[in-house]
Amino acid sequence: MHQTIDATLGINLLHANQSLANLNRAEFDDWGVYCLNLMSSPGAGKTVLLEKTLAALSGQLQMAVIEGDMTTELDAERLRQYDVPVIAINTGRSCHLDAKMVAGGMHSLEHDYEPADLDLVFVENVGNLVCPAEFEVGEHAKVALLSITEGEDKPLKYPVMFQEADCLLLTKIDLAPYLEIDLDRIIQSVRQMNPNVRIFPVSAKTGEGLDPWFKWVQLQVALRQQSAKGAAVQELVW
Amino acid sequence: MHQTIDATLGINLLHANQSLANLNRAEFDDWGVYCLNLMSSPGAGKTVLLEKTLAALSGQLQMAVIEGDMTTELDAERLRQYDVPVIAINTGRSCHLDAKMVAGGMHSLEHDYEPADLDLVFVENVGNLVCPAEFEVGEHAKVALLSITEGEDKPLKYPVMFQEADCLLLTKIDLAPYLEIDLDRIIQSVRQMNPNVRIFPVSAKTGEGLDPWFKWVQLQVALRQQSAKGAAVQELVW
Repeated sequence: MHQTIDATLGINLLHANQSLANLNRAEFDDWGVYCLNLMSSPGAGKTVLLEKTLAALSGQLQMAVIEGDMTTELDAERLRQYDVPVIAINTGRSCHLDAKMVAGGMHSLEHDYEPADLDLVFVENVGNLVCPAEFEVGEHAKVALLSITEGEDKPLKYPVMFQEADCLLLTKIDLAPYLEIDLDRIIQSVRQMNPNVRIFPVSAKTGEGLDPWFKWVQLQVALRQQSAKGAAVQELVW
Repeated sequence: MHQTIDATLGINLLHANQSLANLNRAEFDDWGVYCLNLMSSPGAGKTVLLEKTLAALSGQLQMAVIEGDMTTELDAERLRQYDVPVIAINTGRSCHLDAKMVAGGMHSLEHDYEPADLDLVFVENVGNLVCPAEFEVGEHAKVALLSITEGEDKPLKYPVMFQEADCLLLTKIDLAPYLEIDLDRIIQSVRQMNPNVRIFPVSAKTGEGLDPWFKWVQLQVALRQQSAKGAAVQELVW
């Protein structure tokens, strides 16, 4: 569960979270690292997407994962097979990661590894289509996943996640022949909430649609690195 | 989102919620109505299960639905086709129904209908596998749904929902041939969290497994009515 007000300290926890998220982002920028926050309902396929992405991009990018789960290190253990730093955070009864938890994960990354060698940190959030969208953690972009098994109306019924997302993966499209579902209607519902979000229909099982996602990730990292270099040049010029 | 502490009033909202849930339950008892709280991830099939259940039991039970959604009345409109009272509650940014919202729904039921004529009220919660399990609304039993598309490990990773459930429906079992999933392993994971929970594997699409669920619902209502009569007899005796 989560609080938005701390009665003892008398502070608005959402505002405090936002401030800390901004500090996290500044720290990622200092490291020269791009950060993506992955969010979805339980079982939409965040971990398997990360497995495929770590495998596909291992030659091109240095990656790490901050892995959030209420309990267990089941997902963290799956991802450690890919020879990348994986920091596991158990949120206990909390239904989302917050900026403080991710700051703790970043501290562990800094302690045990050399973060300046990294290009990209994935944050895998707790499986929940509602609350994680409210709590920034310091990411540069938000990636939402929606399994097509969840139904066509979900973007209308859970609007915040879809409004906040910079990129949306429609997952498990290999199951489309066995579902009474219209992919175009899902996409229409998404566009109703967020006309500009980038949408990738994918199947981690068959590999369909994954290449454009990999390229999008690489492009975001390259753009960030370029803009960081640009900023450094600007500083020299001025 | 939800708060657990109210800074202005200085009260623990979870305790306040529990007190109000107890009042709701007492009111349901006064009406002679049994209440089931349906909870799951988004898209696990709560609404279609209700559609099938309202259709199957319409000759035997007088039913109503209190329907919770963040936004829209899409689900409420689907259920109104079944000629039962449906009270729609929009929770806004809140990720779960609480006892106060359900008290409002009960008030609407009382205002527009004759609740003493009812046998059974279903509460359909917001789609979320985490937060609704923490907030009682006055139900007599909690029903959790888990779609087999969500994966085998979910009961281990989201333990509270599975520990709290009195009854669990494993939904979408018609998709089992197309998934790399072991139903026995899901059931083992559930049993690890809750050894005694009643489990019904079902498919709303094919109808498989629904009859035992309908019978379970009828039995709960009959047991409640019998125990209410017993209590009334006890009162006369004493």
